[in-house]
Amino acid sequence: MTQKVRISLDAMGGDHGPSVVIPGAALTLQRRPDAEFIIHGKAEDCLPLLEQHPVLKAVTTFQHADIAIRMDDKPSQALRQGRYKSSMWRALESVKKGEADVAVSAGNTGALMAMSKFCLRTMAQVDRPAIAAIWPTIRGETIVLDVGATIGADARHLVDLAIMGSAMAEIVFGIDKPTVGLLNVGVEEIKGVEEVKSAGRILKEASFPHLSYAGFVEGDDIGKGAVDVVVTEGFAGNIALKTAEGTAKQMATYLRSAMSRTLMAKIGYIFAKGAFAALREKMDPRRANGGVFLGLDGIVIKSHGGADATGFAAAVELGYDMVKHDLLSKIRDSLEVHFPSAAPETAVAAPETPSS
Amino acid sequence: MTQKVRISLDAMGGDHGPSVVIPGAALTLQRRPDAEFIIHGKAEDCLPLLEQHPVLKAVTTFQHADIAIRMDDKPSQALRQGRYKSSMWRALESVKKGEADVAVSAGNTGALMAMSKFCLRTMAQVDRPAIAAIWPTIRGETIVLDVGATIGADARHLVDLAIMGSAMAEIVFGIDKPTVGLLNVGVEEIKGVEEVKSAGRILKEASFPHLSYAGFVEGDDIGKGAVDVVVTEGFAGNIALKTAEGTAKQMATYLRSAMSRTLMAKIGYIFAKGAFAALREKMDPRRANGGVFLGLDGIVIKSHGGADATGFAAAVELGYDMVKHDLLSKIRDSLEVHFPSAAPETAVAAPETPSS
Repeated sequence: MTQKVRISLDAMGGDHGPSVVIPGAALTLQRRPDAEFIIHGKAEDCLPLLEQHPVLKAVTTFQHADIAIRMDDKPSQALRQGRYKSSMWRALESVKKGEADVAVSAGNTGALMAMSKFCLRTMAQVDRPAIAAIWPTIRGETIVLDVGATIGADARHLVDLAIMGSAMAEIVFGIDKPTVGLLNVGVEEIKGVEEVKSAGRILKEASFPHLSYAGFVEGDDIGKGAVDVVVTEGFAGNIALKTAEGTAKQMATYLRSAMSRTLMAKIGYIFAKGAFAALREKMDPRRANGGVFLGLDGIVIKSHGGADATGFAAAVELGYDMVKHDLLSKIRDSLEVHFPSAAPETAVAAPETPSS
Repeated sequence: MTQKVRISLDAMGGDHGPSVVIPGAALTLQRRPDAEFIIHGKAEDCLPLLEQHPVLKAVTTFQHADIAIRMDDKPSQALRQGRYKSSMWRALESVKKGEADVAVSAGNTGALMAMSKFCLRTMAQVDRPAIAAIWPTIRGETIVLDVGATIGADARHLVDLAIMGSAMAEIVFGIDKPTVGLLNVGVEEIKGVEEVKSAGRILKEASFPHLSYAGFVEGDDIGKGAVDVVVTEGFAGNIALKTAEGTAKQMATYLRSAMSRTLMAKIGYIFAKGAFAALREKMDPRRANGGVFLGLDGIVIKSHGGADATGFAAAVELGYDMVKHDLLSKIRDSLEVHFPSAAPETAVAAPETPSS
């Protein structure tokens, strides 16, 4: 085993494909000189670009793949057409074979998750995977999961999410014992579905050593940064994420129209231009780029499809950090402590069990 | 039956009680001269205020109530202590007895919903009530329901929500056949829970005459104003609403801090002050005041607890409009058309069935 961090890239994913992925990888290499790459994509599209980045080329293995998954391919379609043959599949396969430590793709989320489940399988102790988003807040950032990998969650799955999310938070935020909240609704008496209440009881009573359970949180607590990790079932989590994105865009639209309505406002805008530029950057949903797929037997990072080279590099570096701090072992160790039922002898066979 | 619109008010609800409710009612009366009021509250708190509004006093019946439900009372506690005796209960009872056409309270949502279910019961054709919010969007406003009355929803309940929400939209927006979307998650293959998919099929195939079904919408479509009515189960709806409120506050915080960071920004702020004031008003979550409780055998409006007299008047006028345009008959007629199984002869006994 080398000490290098080996990163497998799907060069054909995202709105811009190799023209973003390859310069993005070059950027990462400047900042993470111990990275190595396996780049999967169409030779005719990738090799000329790779020539322009000789430093990157020197630490890259290029592997040609015939098929590129489109951004609007349905997961089943992507699996049918792209299994074994697409750059997305091959990027994951490099991790599966142990040739790479992490796979990064800006391709479509549904296809990437379907292929990840099929190719990498879920961890022995985890039933179902999750997507974790890094959510900008007033106080900094919060990890929110699941934002759409799996619909419906029993109490155990919510506890798994708490453990996986806090392992990720330790790495991303560099803190011990991140605070974890369970997303719920406010009205006392009907407080949430049974699964959420039951997960709350488990998290409270078990006093897990690697996380600090902070109780229920509500939708408006996410943006406040009330906790480091917000745990929720994937349907509600996806709706919360999309609603927040929509509201941020709505506010930006209001602001633009307010600033162009009167002459005074226009003059004010000219003076405050710098402040507005800073604000725009802060409100940019692409700023926090990179969803992390958790619960799989391998690390997979999803970059936003519309990311530029800087944005894609941020996603790659997120993956790099996960490898460097050994996310998978952290999760496995936490789960072993918390759920000793998943003892090593039974766990040996589990990776072969097909996931949902 | 008089042609007047008879409005029953809980004067003790909200953060400010009668000092907002009574001036709010006076404001409404200026704009809706055919309104009459029954005001429920503590005589010592209300009567002196009522003296200050002689025009209102002339069309008001005042009824003393010993108990005021507190904003932090749990629903069960409120029911135990306040049933029959509180101003909140009495306000609802006026509707139940047929003395008023609508009840308005700024009291706590959980208590008001619990008492409404207990006092008014649900409509014959509806199993469970809902709370509808009026959500500001880029294009105007959208009705979103359920935002937290009921957790979990089967397909029939989602269809009920679509029918009730579109009846409300017809009145609030003054349009025929409002467009209705079902809130769902984006990934094609795993699109939503079974109930949402099944409700989508019913809405598509039945081609309901009073609404125009627009298919699934995602969280970010709400703020875009993609449809007139967004239908969702109460847990996800409550989380979406709270998340949007949190994000709006977060954006306002970013904006404030951006505008005070540099001298240039501060100068710009002075020029654009008018624009910022307009923007602040637009971003104010209290602007769209008044949740409507749907599915009950009576009209109940919940005003925001923090509303001022103007805000409370807006909630009262929302209730007035619902009465004037006969919301309950609209809903009942729609439901009869769509679900003829709830035929008049079987429906007669149904109001006696205790609701959940």
